[in-house]
Amino acid sequence: MLTLHTWTTPNGRKIPIMLEELGLPYTIKTVNLGKKEQFAPEFLKLSPNNKIPAMEDGGLTIFESGAILTYLAEKTGKLLPPNGPQRYKVLEWLHWQIGGLGPMLGQAGFFAVRSEQKAPLAIEHFLNETDRLLGVMDKQLSQHTYIAGADYSIADIACYPWVMAALDKLKPALADKLDNKPHLQRWIKTVGERPAVQRGMALPKVD
Amino acid sequence: MLTLHTWTTPNGRKIPIMLEELGLPYTIKTVNLGKKEQFAPEFLKLSPNNKIPAMEDGGLTIFESGAILTYLAEKTGKLLPPNGPQRYKVLEWLHWQIGGLGPMLGQAGFFAVRSEQKAPLAIEHFLNETDRLLGVMDKQLSQHTYIAGADYSIADIACYPWVMAALDKLKPALADKLDNKPHLQRWIKTVGERPAVQRGMALPKVD
Repeated sequence: MLTLHTWTTPNGRKIPIMLEELGLPYTIKTVNLGKKEQFAPEFLKLSPNNKIPAMEDGGLTIFESGAILTYLAEKTGKLLPPNGPQRYKVLEWLHWQIGGLGPMLGQAGFFAVRSEQKAPLAIEHFLNETDRLLGVMDKQLSQHTYIAGADYSIADIACYPWVMAALDKLKPALADKLDNKPHLQRWIKTVGERPAVQRGMALPKVD
Repeated sequence: MLTLHTWTTPNGRKIPIMLEELGLPYTIKTVNLGKKEQFAPEFLKLSPNNKIPAMEDGGLTIFESGAILTYLAEKTGKLLPPNGPQRYKVLEWLHWQIGGLGPMLGQAGFFAVRSEQKAPLAIEHFLNETDRLLGVMDKQLSQHTYIAGADYSIADIACYPWVMAALDKLKPALADKLDNKPHLQRWIKTVGERPAVQRGMALPKVD
């Protein structure tokens, strides 16, 4: 049985979406970031960087959402081609999300929304970068149905919760910059209609 | 023949280190970031995010350093186990570098060094995160020879140029926080003694 340690954040929702898509049985253990449960010693053993998500599968423990998505894709042979050029199109866009879209939107959320002290230079810097990255997605999606090409993949699963978090948390700050990206809007609608995405985005359930 | 488009930055040096380690023949085309060559239309075709590195191998083009490292490891069967638990230890630490160490040290460099305007809140935020991440490395390296375990891997190659950039550019700001990490210091010495690392860190050659 797979055990997923996660919370209601963009990185935390990637793996429930993936597991719902694959139809694999799994158990969720919540790690309440508001209660700082990510610093508990037993969680640190699974995730030495003190971040969710982390997963257990038999004796294997694995942290980092991109690595977990790759693991589950390779375990099942789904949502990431096992070889050939298209495999690396998926991996390049997965890494683009892990190294760009995620950290930059995360920092935009920190400086523009969560930080009590305000640093206008940092807010402008990260909102500009968020707009640029969403523009890169829009351009890519003007040429392809999904972010890495014709097929839905782990790269889409990695990007979707972050784009939805930007729409939710950053929309006032980004104003109409999100509205002038029609291909991104089309992708949001298409991906958001998948039942597994709808189920995964509602997880983990918290009281 | 492999063609690598790169520059003298931490992400730009990962792939020369990898190619020197593998002994594969390759050609480097420099993309001078100081001259904004990453915005040239012909480079944008290879790298839609306008970032180096990007690589061509026959008809395949691939961007994002983590995806290129994975591609080269899978092409040659080296520095990333093809399956089994240790494969995912390497991938989790690779993703930790791509999503954490790289972006956070990159932003520390931007706010603490490169930005003409200064945002003290952002400088403190990213220097603290840099110190925390280097502490995570030090703790991991207190238990393992290399970052993902007993064997040198693409995760070490991904981390090394970023740690060296921190030592070079951020040391005045981090002061003695880098000196109290003995396991990290031991790893820096061990990895830095590899001839392929020494050759790769000197690339690309520029006039």
